[in-house]
Amino acid sequence: MGNCLQCVKDLCTRPKNTNMRISLPAVCFVWQLAMIILFGVFIRYNEESDVRWVEFKKSQNITSDAENDFYYRYPSFQDVHVMIFVGFGFLMTFLKRYSFGAVGFNFLIAAFGLQWALLMQGWFHSLDYTDGKIKIGVENIINADFCVAGCLIAYGAVLGKVSPVQLLVMTLFGITLFAVEEFIILNLIHARDAGGSMVIHTFGGYYGLSISWVLYRPNLDQSKRLQGSVYHSDVFAMIGTLFLWMFWPSFNSAITDHGDGQHRAAINTYLALASTVLTTVAISSLFEKKGKLDMVHIQNSTLAGGVAVGTAAEFMLMPYGSLIVGFCCGIVSTLGYIYLTPFMEKKLKIQDTCGIHNLHAMPGVIGGIVGAITAASATVPVYGKEGLVNTFDFVDAFATRVPTVQGGYQAAGMCVAIAFGIGGGIIVGTILKLPIWGDPADDNCFDDEVYWEVPEDEESIPPVLEYNNHMTNKRHVMSETNFSVEQS
Amino acid sequence: MGNCLQCVKDLCTRPKNTNMRISLPAVCFVWQLAMIILFGVFIRYNEESDVRWVEFKKSQNITSDAENDFYYRYPSFQDVHVMIFVGFGFLMTFLKRYSFGAVGFNFLIAAFGLQWALLMQGWFHSLDYTDGKIKIGVENIINADFCVAGCLIAYGAVLGKVSPVQLLVMTLFGITLFAVEEFIILNLIHARDAGGSMVIHTFGGYYGLSISWVLYRPNLDQSKRLQGSVYHSDVFAMIGTLFLWMFWPSFNSAITDHGDGQHRAAINTYLALASTVLTTVAISSLFEKKGKLDMVHIQNSTLAGGVAVGTAAEFMLMPYGSLIVGFCCGIVSTLGYIYLTPFMEKKLKIQDTCGIHNLHAMPGVIGGIVGAITAASATVPVYGKEGLVNTFDFVDAFATRVPTVQGGYQAAGMCVAIAFGIGGGIIVGTILKLPIWGDPADDNCFDDEVYWEVPEDEESIPPVLEYNNHMTNKRHVMSETNFSVEQS
Amino acid sequence: MGNCLQCVKDLCTRPKNTNMRISLPAVCFVWQLAMIILFGVFIRYNEESDVRWVEFKKSQNITSDAENDFYYRYPSFQDVHVMIFVGFGFLMTFLKRYSFGAVGFNFLIAAFGLQWALLMQGWFHSLDYTDGKIKIGVENIINADFCVAGCLIAYGAVLGKVSPVQLLVMTLFGITLFAVEEFIILNLIHARDAGGSMVIHTFGGYYGLSISWVLYRPNLDQSKRLQGSVYHSDVFAMIGTLFLWMFWPSFNSAITDHGDGQHRAAINTYLALASTVLTTVAISSLFEKKGKLDMVHIQNSTLAGGVAVGTAAEFMLMPYGSLIVGFCCGIVSTLGYIYLTPFMEKKLKIQDTCGIHNLHAMPGVIGGIVGAITAASATVPVYGKEGLVNTFDFVDAFATRVPTVQGGYQAAGMCVAIAFGIGGGIIVGTILKLPIWGDPADDNCFDDEVYWEVPEDEESIPPVLEYNNHMTNKRHVMSETNFSVEQS
Repeated sequence: MGNCLQCVKDLCTRPKNTNMRISLPAVCFVWQLAMIILFGVFIRYNEESDVRWVEFKKSQNITSDAENDFYYRYPSFQDVHVMIFVGFGFLMTFLKRYSFGAVGFNFLIAAFGLQWALLMQGWFHSLDYTDGKIKIGVENIINADFCVAGCLIAYGAVLGKVSPVQLLVMTLFGITLFAVEEFIILNLIHARDAGGSMVIHTFGGYYGLSISWVLYRPNLDQSKRLQGSVYHSDVFAMIGTLFLWMFWPSFNSAITDHGDGQHRAAINTYLALASTVLTTVAISSLFEKKGKLDMVHIQNSTLAGGVAVGTAAEFMLMPYGSLIVGFCCGIVSTLGYIYLTPFMEKKLKIQDTCGIHNLHAMPGVIGGIVGAITAASATVPVYGKEGLVNTFDFVDAFATRVPTVQGGYQAAGMCVAIAFGIGGGIIVGTILKLPIWGDPADDNCFDDEVYWEVPEDEESIPPVLEYNNHMTNKRHVMSETNFSVEQS
Repeated sequence: MGNCLQCVKDLCTRPKNTNMRISLPAVCFVWQLAMIILFGVFIRYNEESDVRWVEFKKSQNITSDAENDFYYRYPSFQDVHVMIFVGFGFLMTFLKRYSFGAVGFNFLIAAFGLQWALLMQGWFHSLDYTDGKIKIGVENIINADFCVAGCLIAYGAVLGKVSPVQLLVMTLFGITLFAVEEFIILNLIHARDAGGSMVIHTFGGYYGLSISWVLYRPNLDQSKRLQGSVYHSDVFAMIGTLFLWMFWPSFNSAITDHGDGQHRAAINTYLALASTVLTTVAISSLFEKKGKLDMVHIQNSTLAGGVAVGTAAEFMLMPYGSLIVGFCCGIVSTLGYIYLTPFMEKKLKIQDTCGIHNLHAMPGVIGGIVGAITAASATVPVYGKEGLVNTFDFVDAFATRVPTVQGGYQAAGMCVAIAFGIGGGIIVGTILKLPIWGDPADDNCFDDEVYWEVPEDEESIPPVLEYNNHMTNKRHVMSETNFSVEQS
Repeated sequence: MGNCLQCVKDLCTRPKNTNMRISLPAVCFVWQLAMIILFGVFIRYNEESDVRWVEFKKSQNITSDAENDFYYRYPSFQDVHVMIFVGFGFLMTFLKRYSFGAVGFNFLIAAFGLQWALLMQGWFHSLDYTDGKIKIGVENIINADFCVAGCLIAYGAVLGKVSPVQLLVMTLFGITLFAVEEFIILNLIHARDAGGSMVIHTFGGYYGLSISWVLYRPNLDQSKRLQGSVYHSDVFAMIGTLFLWMFWPSFNSAITDHGDGQHRAAINTYLALASTVLTTVAISSLFEKKGKLDMVHIQNSTLAGGVAVGTAAEFMLMPYGSLIVGFCCGIVSTLGYIYLTPFMEKKLKIQDTCGIHNLHAMPGVIGGIVGAITAASATVPVYGKEGLVNTFDFVDAFATRVPTVQGGYQAAGMCVAIAFGIGGGIIVGTILKLPIWGDPADDNCFDDEVYWEVPEDEESIPPVLEYNNHMTNKRHVMSETNFSVEQS
């Protein structure tokens, strides 16, 4: 025991080694091989993506290929896919010298995460008990992207402070926790959460924040020169912001009911997001000196309305209801960036690089509450009897549930998401604290140089002659430089 | 009266105050609250986005959810949405130091505009007279985006020279004028304008140009150092160009008839745009010294074909007809950038930052004319009797109209669009000339510093040691600097 | 004869003239006019995009507009469209000073190519023998985009080393060769190739490589200063990478069978691409010094899985099969960048700017082989009898073909693609070697200055006073400069 403690202590005091040459390839290869084996054992096409669809159609009296779920959901899937890879990826490029890491590691963990998510979610939701296989179709790949979103949110909290191997570990556990949490909330508690305010954003937010809390770096200001943006990195980040903002209606409507469900969810989200933009601008201008706008707010808080309308988007929230949700979230999220993030860093020891608490965690909680209230106040005059059953899935074991009770269960789901986020984050954070994962030293955080071959940056390229002279005279120039230094 | 004049004179001679800390938040909050109230009073879901869709389906004998308009139009909506926010936003990032303003204010006014457009267009087109409510679905949100496009076009003319509050005022009036103009053209005159060559582009173009004319700044060359692009800002602008170019077929087909209407409009637009690219390149190379290409033309004129084919896209324009329209527009638009824009600035006192006259106004007028000709020459052998009725909506009060007459009405619509654009622009411009809106001084135009917190731009980030030394020695360095200055 | 030789010799020794002022406009105008005439003679709407769709529907007992092929394929078309213009365009922006050329010429040749492709492919596939017209619909414009992809791949090999006129010539011949090759492979040999592993990627890859081989420049290191990337150009390139990666499922499923065909192709591609990312990262880290990642690999090799799964995506490849294909391609492609590209440049005299051999040619061949094996091993228990006929189109003249035989024909198709690529490339390369096309000198390669008006790059914009002083004192400053030069 003493030996073991000593061993851990030794590990902890070793100088940081960020060389990933063994660990990163090893993890990638082994995990990908594991995926292939598990997919070989478990995953098959479902009846809509299998070549036997033609027989299935006949057996179900389906007359048109347009009834294949692919055509209901694929356009939304592609929008969600863009949000995951371009949206989240570019949103995080705002740092002046961590754009490679932002886009690149986002790419890596999403590509791994979606495979693992297909398995984990498949076991819980799409297992065919007749042959023990998971049958996948377009809805599964949307859900896999959703599941990945949770982990990418968490990445936002630790951006620039962890190694790619740590990110992969964080994703492995994150997806696993997500699948369990989602099963409890959606199936056991039978809460509704179409856009994932609770399941995705609240969980992902607190998961990331807890990890960041455990991995607290007291000397992070040693890399202060790399915190913050440059002009063009802020413009790159706006690409992420806009693709997230524009496609959020697809995110919240991607897996809702065919017909009015998808239609209404898209409209509600569209409206909530529009409203958020105005209050974000208002608060940003009101609280900055001289009334100037802050890019951080525009890049992030404008999205809060989409998060907060996630749960209730498929309900009869009403267009003005969506606007109200967006209105509040723009205010709360922007104030969060101004007051809460510095407070959390100083007092709570939570370093939240991208401010995910303001963009995902808080709006997610608001979304959960809005969902609970909207569900609890659902009535037959508004929904119709059939509509009530369809919207809240009051069938089978839940056929006797009524809206007021459903509201309570929605709130319960919220609590489960928070608990899983915080609990899971602390455990995973502790694992990631082991000094074997190759994370950067405090003065190397937010620096692409650590994990990437970064090109020399000669913005002004000399004309050819000059360049050649330059190469020839390099030695000479250097001596001159020395000379001038001596002189001074 | 004299007092009042004096008062206005005093206002006009005050030094410019660009501090938005009161006005911008106030406008955003008040207007957003007004939106919430108006939405609460007026806006509800229509039968396809309401939870009662399931009952509606039964009552109309609709057998499949695929018949919900959502599935016919939502993919096009998302493409249009991308054009509005990424397309217009990034197209205007070409200025070296106004990218935040380009993307950010575009975002702000679009987010406000679409809410106001839902109301204004709703009152004219979607009012349910049984309960006095506006019922919205996917077509309404597409139309709201269209309506916003008109104002964003106008933004192009005044880019960099106005304050965000001015932009919001411009949008408020612009949307209002748009809705009235659209009602006159589409409903009263009963012209067809699927892609909005007249309704959107001609109106938006002349609206912006008139405003810019009223707001003429004789000393604008004081900010000459900020006019023009840098290498990377030109690449950012190409993101805008390409997303506009690629998704224009969706723009022109988004609200055309189901089936062949959408199909044909997309193909026509696809072809017109392809043709425009070649003639734009040709003219750009032909008129520049040494045959080099100019990024301004490639970024803008390549889009003119999409504008000009807007009205006729749903007609039987024929594939070669589309190519011809694109061919001409590439030439006209590029020549406009080379000759007309400088002429307009010098002689007509119209400062058109983005050259919207060449990209929207002129091609819009061409589009109106093409539409009138194509409509007038429609015949039963080509369209079939039913096709003619469907394409031109010769029903109800217009059941007796014939194609030749329709051609005349199309031309009349064109005139209405121009009249509304110029008239409205002059009135709104005069309002915006009041010196209370916080617009920048002449030597501060095109500068993000005025309205944004802009990060210090240290492109070359020093290594950590150097940086620390640098911070320690700063005082020392500064004295040295002084020394060297004295020396010189 | 001797005269003629002398004449050619003279041409070859002339100093390079890159002035495009006559040739580029001439080619653009003449070719575009030719397109208009040919479209006028040959191209009409098909029954789904023609206004007579309403009659066609009745005659075919089609009850819903949703059965119009537009709704099955248009969302995929738009994704493919984004891949062609933003994907390919931005992927090539990685060079520090060739971003204008990358995006701009990509735009130009794609816009021309798609028109010519509509004609060429139309003659082979969509000719209506009753009236001699080509009837086009959404599938034709997807195929035109596909056809263009082949030429854009080839552009990758010669990026930065050819003139726009050369590119247009290369595209003209490339599209022509493509259409013939495609007709042989898909119709005569009756191979299946939904995602174009063979038809598009293998052909395009070898076509470009052969051209590059013929155009070998022994002194290319004279423009070495412009080879390679800068920080932000690498981020721009990631935009291209991600849009290609995300939309590749749409690429491979765009023209597959309605229903399960599109559904399965999308899922297979989604999985193959995910798998590729992990092995690319692994190999990149394993073979770089200190285990750092190389942006070149992340930008390119992550896409190889999409290429390689193209042919088999619509078959019952099984999810784990897709993962295996992606797994192998990530390894092969990344190793190609590390070992093969330098080898090819040194020993084979093939200068491959973007490494298309690793991204398209090799994975394309792998894709052809995977397709042949998957086809050969298709069985009735897996596909069902009807499924087998549907998947492989065993109808009409091919009704008696069996899977094992089909496998052989797939392999034959592969060989045809390679032969057309290499043969065609050598011929076209020889044509392009004529010294009349305005290609840049060796020390001007990879430089936008040659064909574009490039803005002065003053990243740090001086404040207004300084700037004015600067302008006034320019002469003074210059004399000082001279002074200091004299001094040194």
